[in-house]
Order: sequence, then C-alpha cells, then structure tokens
Amino acid sequence: MREHETELRVRYDEVDAMGFVHHSNYLRYFEIGRTELLRVSGGCYRDMESAGQWVVVVHVDCKYRKPARYDDVITVRTRIHKVTIGKIVHAYEITRNDEKLVTALVTLVVIDERGNPQRIPEELLELYG
Amino acid sequence: MREHETELRVRYDEVDAMGFVHHSNYLRYFEIGRTELLRVSGGCYRDMESAGQWVVVVHVDCKYRKPARYDDVITVRTRIHKVTIGKIVHAYEITRNDEKLVTALVTLVVIDERGNPQRIPEELLELYG
Amino acid sequence: MREHETELRVRYDEVDAMGFVHHSNYLRYFEIGRTELLRVSGGCYRDMESAGQWVVVVHVDCKYRKPARYDDVITVRTRIHKVTIGKIVHAYEITRNDEKLVTALVTLVVIDERGNPQRIPEELLELYG
Amino acid sequence: MREHETELRVRYDEVDAMGFVHHSNYLRYFEIGRTELLRVSGGCYRDMESAGQWVVVVHVDCKYRKPARYDDVITVRTRIHKVTIGKIVHAYEITRNDEKLVTALVTLVVIDERGNPQRIPEELLELYG
Repeated sequence: MREHETELRVRYDEVDAMGFVHHSNYLRYFEIGRTELLRVSGGCYRDMESAGQWVVVVHVDCKYRKPARYDDVITVRTRIHKVTIGKIVHAYEITRNDEKLVTALVTLVVIDERGNPQRIPEELLELYG
Repeated sequence: MREHETELRVRYDEVDAMGFVHHSNYLRYFEIGRTELLRVSGGCYRDMESAGQWVVVVHVDCKYRKPARYDDVITVRTRIHKVTIGKIVHAYEITRNDEKLVTALVTLVVIDERGNPQRIPEELLELYG
Repeated sequence: MREHETELRVRYDEVDAMGFVHHSNYLRYFEIGRTELLRVSGGCYRDMESAGQWVVVVHVDCKYRKPARYDDVITVRTRIHKVTIGKIVHAYEITRNDEKLVTALVTLVVIDERGNPQRIPEELLELYG
Repeated sequence: MREHETELRVRYDEVDAMGFVHHSNYLRYFEIGRTELLRVSGGCYRDMESAGQWVVVVHVDCKYRKPARYDDVITVRTRIHKVTIGKIVHAYEITRNDEKLVTALVTLVVIDERGNPQRIPEELLELYG
C-alpha cells in the first residue's frame, strides 16, 4: 500500500484558546496516519522499535490553510512521496468534508539505539518502494 | 528539603477552548514541582531512571478551584506529605498571586524495568524521610 | 444512556520515556469517554459550549494499576456515577483485554462565561438522571 | 528587539518512548520563543488576542538534527527573519551547550475573529520592522 486514509475526531485537549487545533497537533495526526499506513501494509512501528530500529523525523514542511475545531471529524490522507535507501518522505493532506485544511511533507530516517543512521530496512523498501 | 516552590508561565498550547489551562496539564506541573524539589534536595530523576529505578504515579487526588489562563505566572508549591518504605506522597498547591487555584495529593512508587515494585531507595528516604 | 464504552489506540506522543502512557493522558481519555457517552445519549458538549454552558472539571480521583503502552488498544468504560443539581460524577475504567489498568471518578460542574456556577442543565438531568 | 534567547528545561511529558523530545514539541518551544521575544520588545500576545487580533501559524519548515532529552537545558534563539504587511517569519535555532539540535522558519499571519486575514498591526511593524 502506498496510500491510506484515517479518520479522527478532534479532541478537546487538542484545541487552543482560539478554538482551533493547536498547530503542533497536526504533526501528531500525521504520525497516526503513517502508523496506520504501515499497519495496513503489514508492518508495525512497535515491532521495529523492539527490533532496535528507531524511526525519527528529520524534516517537517507543513502548510496550514484552514483550522480544524473541537469535535470535527477530519481525514488524514497519507501517501508515500519518496523512498530512498536513506529516507522515507510521506505526503499528508488533512481534510474536513473535502475542504483542504493542512498539507505537509515529513521526512523520516531510521537510526539504531546509539543514534547512528541506518539504511531503510528491506521490508519497508518492499512495502513502499 | 521537604518543600519547594517553582514558578511557571502558562504556555499557549496548555490552554483549552475556554481559555483555561486544560485540567490534565496540572498533573504535568506537579511533575515539574517534584522534579525540582528533588533537584534542590540533591537528587535527580534522570539519574534514577538510568539506574533502573522508575518512579511511577499510582494515585492522583486533585481539586480544581479556579482556572489558570494563558500567560499567567503561577507558583507550584510541592511538599513531602508522607514517605513509607513503599511509597512517597507529595502535596501540591498551585497559586496565582496568593490565590489558590489547584491542590492535589499524588502518590508515587518505584518499580524496576520489569514493573516489579521496589522499596523506596535509601537516598530518597534520607532526603525526604 | 448511563454507560458507554469507547475503544482507543494509544498514540506515540502519549507515551513517555518508560514506554508507558503518561499518567496525565488518562484524564484526556476520560474526557473522550464522557464526550462519547453524551453523544450516544443525544447530547453534544460543543453545542453546550456554543450555548454558553461550560463544563469544567473540579475533582479527579484516579488510581493507576498497570500501564498502557504505545499502540495498545484500550477500552474506556464511562458510567454515570452520581448526578445532583450542582454536579455530575462519572466513573471510568480503562482496560486492555479485560485487564484493569486505570480507574477514576471525575466530578464536573457547569459554569457560565463569567465563571459563575450553574445548575446542571435540565437536558443533562434527563439524559443521565 | 529582533532577536531573543530563552532557556527551557525539557519536561518529562515532552519526551517519547525513545527518550527524545517528541518532534511536535519543538513547535511549542518556538511559540514560547516568539512570545518572549515579543514580551521583551514591549508587546504581548495575550493583549493582542483580547483586542481581536489572532496570530496564526500558516507555515512551518523545521529541520531536526539531534534530539533533546528529558531534563536537558536547551536554548531557543528566536530571530525576526522577515516582516511584510501580510506576514511575519521568525527563524529559530534550538541548541544544547552550543550543539545545534533543531532549526526552523515559522510564518505567522494575523486574522480577526471571523478568520479574515489582517494587515500586520502597526505596533508589530514598528517593533520588528
């Protein structure tokens, strides 16, 4: 699978004093999106971590067009944008009833427990490549 | 030391749509309070964790009287309420200009990496006992 | 309805350095539980807020038995424990495969936009009373 | 003032299961940085909100080089990167003992309570221009 959609309902604690989802929380929604994309593809981040393969974010480029609000049901569309032997880039689009709210590119690398960069594991290359 | 005061300024992401600090965030303020009490007493949670002594919360009893708001400067007063060989109870009081906002008792135990309960380490008993 | 169960999957950002859900996040799970209980009962917190009825937490009494971990699927069971003209108390039980993790009582009151306490609205008394 | 440094200590709840600050939390550190830059310049976001001028983030471009950990003391250096009549761009650099951890550009616009974009208020242009 190279694309997946996840539905979320905005929680009360995710909203700020303006009544909008705090901009940092979209990064958490993206993380849910890629976790679920991996899961439907047959992988699991928790198992990767147990195996000493830690996935870390090295770059976020995120554009905010319109705000989501408390109790909104939003859709996180996650897509594999680019895979190399050293990194994976996902593209995200968050919508509410087809209205585009937020888009982003997030780049991941894999490190070992000492922080040394690893090649993207074969299984991920096969799942996404 | 058996008592300590820490000042904090409320952050934007800690406030909810009513403009109040989300009630869950006071538990985070308490954690800062006990961390700083331990630090001024000569101890350090990070070192305890590195030594395989994990401190976990087993009980929170928290009363909310008045809300803190964005950008407020608040004081977290942390006090050792009770120490036994199996647990530590801290009492907390959060105030803004002497106005009492939130009070709580939080009970901690120490576990090892497998989750087995440990006796409270001697050094903590000495610091707080 | 006086009782409801909601399933959640633990998110990566909700877990702390021990690999456990941070104790403050269970309060956020409870909030989701009572929101969903209200929704299946025919009510909506968002509409109450729009109508100037703000629901605030005044007391949390929470016991932590076992930790939830990243990617766990947990069940939040929310039950009406007590309703008076001045407050609502919900009881919560969070489980993972029938293993009891966390239990709590959380007391709510209703205030207006100036912070003055209100009687619990008739519609809530009817839904829950 | 066009530049400011703020020191922060990493909180326990900000760290994830790898022991690193969750990548979303740096966006919250940036927000603290720009709030403090504005404060030392003589302005105040809280007052702007009270006056119906809401500052929202429209773009984040953030590069993560090395992780901060629990209890680390980090420095957030905030600098005015660009100001136009329609937006303000701050540049951020987060360091730990002069080791560069995270850098970012974050773009803000000002809206009114209906969400309509506003010119950057004169007072901000004067402070930062």
